[in-house]
Amino acid sequence: MDWPVLLEAAEAAARATTGRGRVADYIPALATADPEAFGMAVATVEGELHGVGDWQRPFSVQSVSKLFSLALAVAYGGDTLWQGVGREPSGNPFNSLVQLETEHGIPRNPFINAGALVVTDRLHTMTGDASGAVREFLRRESGNPLLDTDPVVAASEAEHGHRNAALAHFIASHGNLENPVETVLEHYYAHCAVATSCRDLVLAGSFLARYGVRADGTRLMSRSETKRINAVLLTCGTYDAAGEFAFRVGLPGKSGVGGGILAILPGRAAVCAWGPRLDQAGNSVAAVAALDTLTTLSGCSVF
Amino acid sequence: MDWPVLLEAAEAAARATTGRGRVADYIPALATADPEAFGMAVATVEGELHGVGDWQRPFSVQSVSKLFSLALAVAYGGDTLWQGVGREPSGNPFNSLVQLETEHGIPRNPFINAGALVVTDRLHTMTGDASGAVREFLRRESGNPLLDTDPVVAASEAEHGHRNAALAHFIASHGNLENPVETVLEHYYAHCAVATSCRDLVLAGSFLARYGVRADGTRLMSRSETKRINAVLLTCGTYDAAGEFAFRVGLPGKSGVGGGILAILPGRAAVCAWGPRLDQAGNSVAAVAALDTLTTLSGCSVF
Amino acid sequence: MDWPVLLEAAEAAARATTGRGRVADYIPALATADPEAFGMAVATVEGELHGVGDWQRPFSVQSVSKLFSLALAVAYGGDTLWQGVGREPSGNPFNSLVQLETEHGIPRNPFINAGALVVTDRLHTMTGDASGAVREFLRRESGNPLLDTDPVVAASEAEHGHRNAALAHFIASHGNLENPVETVLEHYYAHCAVATSCRDLVLAGSFLARYGVRADGTRLMSRSETKRINAVLLTCGTYDAAGEFAFRVGLPGKSGVGGGILAILPGRAAVCAWGPRLDQAGNSVAAVAALDTLTTLSGCSVF
Amino acid sequence: MDWPVLLEAAEAAARATTGRGRVADYIPALATADPEAFGMAVATVEGELHGVGDWQRPFSVQSVSKLFSLALAVAYGGDTLWQGVGREPSGNPFNSLVQLETEHGIPRNPFINAGALVVTDRLHTMTGDASGAVREFLRRESGNPLLDTDPVVAASEAEHGHRNAALAHFIASHGNLENPVETVLEHYYAHCAVATSCRDLVLAGSFLARYGVRADGTRLMSRSETKRINAVLLTCGTYDAAGEFAFRVGLPGKSGVGGGILAILPGRAAVCAWGPRLDQAGNSVAAVAALDTLTTLSGCSVF
Repeated sequence: MDWPVLLEAAEAAARATTGRGRVADYIPALATADPEAFGMAVATVEGELHGVGDWQRPFSVQSVSKLFSLALAVAYGGDTLWQGVGREPSGNPFNSLVQLETEHGIPRNPFINAGALVVTDRLHTMTGDASGAVREFLRRESGNPLLDTDPVVAASEAEHGHRNAALAHFIASHGNLENPVETVLEHYYAHCAVATSCRDLVLAGSFLARYGVRADGTRLMSRSETKRINAVLLTCGTYDAAGEFAFRVGLPGKSGVGGGILAILPGRAAVCAWGPRLDQAGNSVAAVAALDTLTTLSGCSVF
Repeated sequence: MDWPVLLEAAEAAARATTGRGRVADYIPALATADPEAFGMAVATVEGELHGVGDWQRPFSVQSVSKLFSLALAVAYGGDTLWQGVGREPSGNPFNSLVQLETEHGIPRNPFINAGALVVTDRLHTMTGDASGAVREFLRRESGNPLLDTDPVVAASEAEHGHRNAALAHFIASHGNLENPVETVLEHYYAHCAVATSCRDLVLAGSFLARYGVRADGTRLMSRSETKRINAVLLTCGTYDAAGEFAFRVGLPGKSGVGGGILAILPGRAAVCAWGPRLDQAGNSVAAVAALDTLTTLSGCSVF
Repeated sequence: MDWPVLLEAAEAAARATTGRGRVADYIPALATADPEAFGMAVATVEGELHGVGDWQRPFSVQSVSKLFSLALAVAYGGDTLWQGVGREPSGNPFNSLVQLETEHGIPRNPFINAGALVVTDRLHTMTGDASGAVREFLRRESGNPLLDTDPVVAASEAEHGHRNAALAHFIASHGNLENPVETVLEHYYAHCAVATSCRDLVLAGSFLARYGVRADGTRLMSRSETKRINAVLLTCGTYDAAGEFAFRVGLPGKSGVGGGILAILPGRAAVCAWGPRLDQAGNSVAAVAALDTLTTLSGCSVF
Repeated sequence: MDWPVLLEAAEAAARATTGRGRVADYIPALATADPEAFGMAVATVEGELHGVGDWQRPFSVQSVSKLFSLALAVAYGGDTLWQGVGREPSGNPFNSLVQLETEHGIPRNPFINAGALVVTDRLHTMTGDASGAVREFLRRESGNPLLDTDPVVAASEAEHGHRNAALAHFIASHGNLENPVETVLEHYYAHCAVATSCRDLVLAGSFLARYGVRADGTRLMSRSETKRINAVLLTCGTYDAAGEFAFRVGLPGKSGVGGGILAILPGRAAVCAWGPRLDQAGNSVAAVAALDTLTTLSGCSVF
């Protein structure tokens, strides 16, 4: 696989989306992102690292962090997690309350906001510091000791967080939170507000391409567990457009409203693309275009 | 891959589910199926064919036929199909009317009943005989000229078909059917009532493992189109349990209430397992157990 | 009560709505109605009859006929009707399928389309001719032997009736129809397509103002039954705007997309206003304005 | 009207419901209520006051207080209230989040929990002390200076209030609260936790029977406004059973999970019945039976 050539082609496809989509503006701290920024990186299981564009420029990880909180909760706690959160696509806007209403406070999957709150809660119970655990993992795997939560973004999320507070209280009303609502929200905001780059994310996500093995060669989780996390990524990782993303790109992946998408080629590589303009479903227009081009040219989707 | 050994282990896992789940009884013609029947077959891209148990015994194909009607509609009509049917998981019971209500008569995906009615309608417009086209394709690919619609099952479906009639009229009220409701229903029932076997289905489904190439070496569709059909199978092919099936089995697959599940290992093989007892989502308990065992032992999921 | 003066004031209010709202156009036969036509009539329990404007001009009764099919089904069959249809407001668009989906084929109330289909079905079982029974009742009470179904409207409804067919099949799939779907639809369309006038309707509806007594002095139903029908009219008679209609007008009433609204002042009078322009909920803009003015000036609401 | 005889008959009907229904137990402070307690009182516009059973025994007013917060918000603020809350029946469980989701944070009506939170919020903006305003009004009208919030009940509500907190945050996320979530919740709990009796409530509610005139002869609101509040009570006052309550009882009324129901006979009287056992919809079994008997015997429903 000639990664530099593929990345170049992917970047060209991403640049061609100029002007399409809108930068997230539900919190002021995100609205200032440069709409035409674009970066992309790949880290192979053989240890190669390639990047194009703004691949080392930090952006807000947002929901991509849910991949890491889920992985740690599974690694530390195993299957008990799935008693409090499902693994089916939601078929509804990503922060919807409707299914919680009819499904007794058990969120559909760990990647909708409600599900990520439950995952954060369980990880907090196990570690005593959910956001610290995510941050520490990201630092170790990426080898970037400066990676940290952006306090302005975290504060902004909290200030505009009535919807997440509603979700958390609603889940608590069904007895599905182990920690106080305020604690869960604080750690949720903290791990979503980490500033990171394509470079950091492909390194941190490589354990999924390596079937569960960390950067230092130790095992975080079993091969079977990585297969399962990849499955949840594919069916639920890109909000209500998971079917569309599978159709076009064909890789397990997790997107965030900061504009990043981290995708996995099992057994081969982790890829991350970033561009702040989002489509209606909340996925980066440029990143989807870049990943679509990459898998189409290389024929390397999971299908 | 030692397929005979894998099939044996899968059969043992399936047999261990004895007594769990219930045979479909919404139409009398299905209720008489032997609950403990089990068969499984695999056809590799190299041309090997293996089977265990009742792998040559006919059963009612039911919704597995939706894979073939979709493939033919895509092969003959290309992307226009997607104007009338989506490709996102439904997140609701497979024959639900709710989403049609809120989404203007565009079914969520081609594998829920509403979506399969639209696919049948389009295939009928293109071929003049939707069920005949499916039947002919199944015969040619499987090399089984006797494969046919079971008229008792088809009549039974029609007689108990108020729900599908409601769906079809509802879609028609949104202007999303090109043919008369009665015609669409007749052809839908006819292709779902085909009697087939694991043997027939793995041969007929092999074009997806061969990236679009028919049994006779000619091309039915492009590689990219097979990738996309596999993606829809993975995200939507097993009713409301697509997330769970991806999580446990990790393969694109299509299930039917006759108890069959046809799954694809892209580039390698087509596998079909069959057992009439169904879980709450409508998927065969024995077939899921068998496929779970097969992919766990062989490590051959797409993830 | 000086009815002529009140009717004049009500007409003035109705005329002031010129240009607001839209004539129903879901079937061609309704779309040709004169948007600025307006009529209003009142029939008191003492036998007075007053009218203004086009009060003797025929229009399509549409859903106002549901009041009469319900009354006859209750008069002939008593409380058993309520096993197949509820009496709660629906809180959803009047022809919605959603609640049928979650409530096992029992429509919320007899005035949404689904409920009226069940009422028509039961009335047909009891009389052998549901639409004939409604027509006959309307003729006898109004003393208008020429009152009849408009065959053009009935045919037009049937032709554009995919939605009602969907509802009927859906109800049948839950076992909540006693007669064939086609029969129920035919009689439903026939009684909704009766051509009638404000004059006819106030005379035909007076039994509710007279606590159950017919025009000829015989009793159709008990006082308690009229109270109950009035209650259902008030909570469910004007589609999704029943709360708003109660708030503004404060009378039990039934509206139709032909533009008519028949309202009851228990113990005093029946009032009917008609104007073809409809608001978003499907109620006549002019008729609501006229009835609002009438009850505000006279202080004669039920509250 | 021979009120003492009517009350006696109503009490007999209520006593006959012994053992049916369940005392509310979602907060401990309510679960200790005597399930067989029953009281009933009537206050006529002529100044008569009658009672039977435990008519002077205090119970938790709960949602009946929503009638008073609504009346004060309308009296002080007029029609602007209706920009933030609707007046249609909800057709869904009384504390549902679903409609808020689809209707942009505007609760369906002022009597579901979400709507009552908005009303409390607006009343707080206008008075600076929403719960104090309700308490003060209840004291003045009932002539009971000792009437007060039960602090144990209020604290218990707050402690088990995740669902109401979720509602309030959700409404706030749509910009439909003027005061902080915590403030609104505190005042909401405080006015729902008032301890009151049938005697107090019929006196306090009599302004609605007197078309807007307070106990001291001054006017709280216009006749038209009382008509409108009565209309909302009839269509929305008894949770999801408003249709059923109108059908059986035929009076505007407001129920609470403390077991009280306050009903209005416009122009004649206010009636309150109380019994802690609730039906599935949350209305008192004994109180509904008593009111049903009262209106059936007296023929005094609004229909």
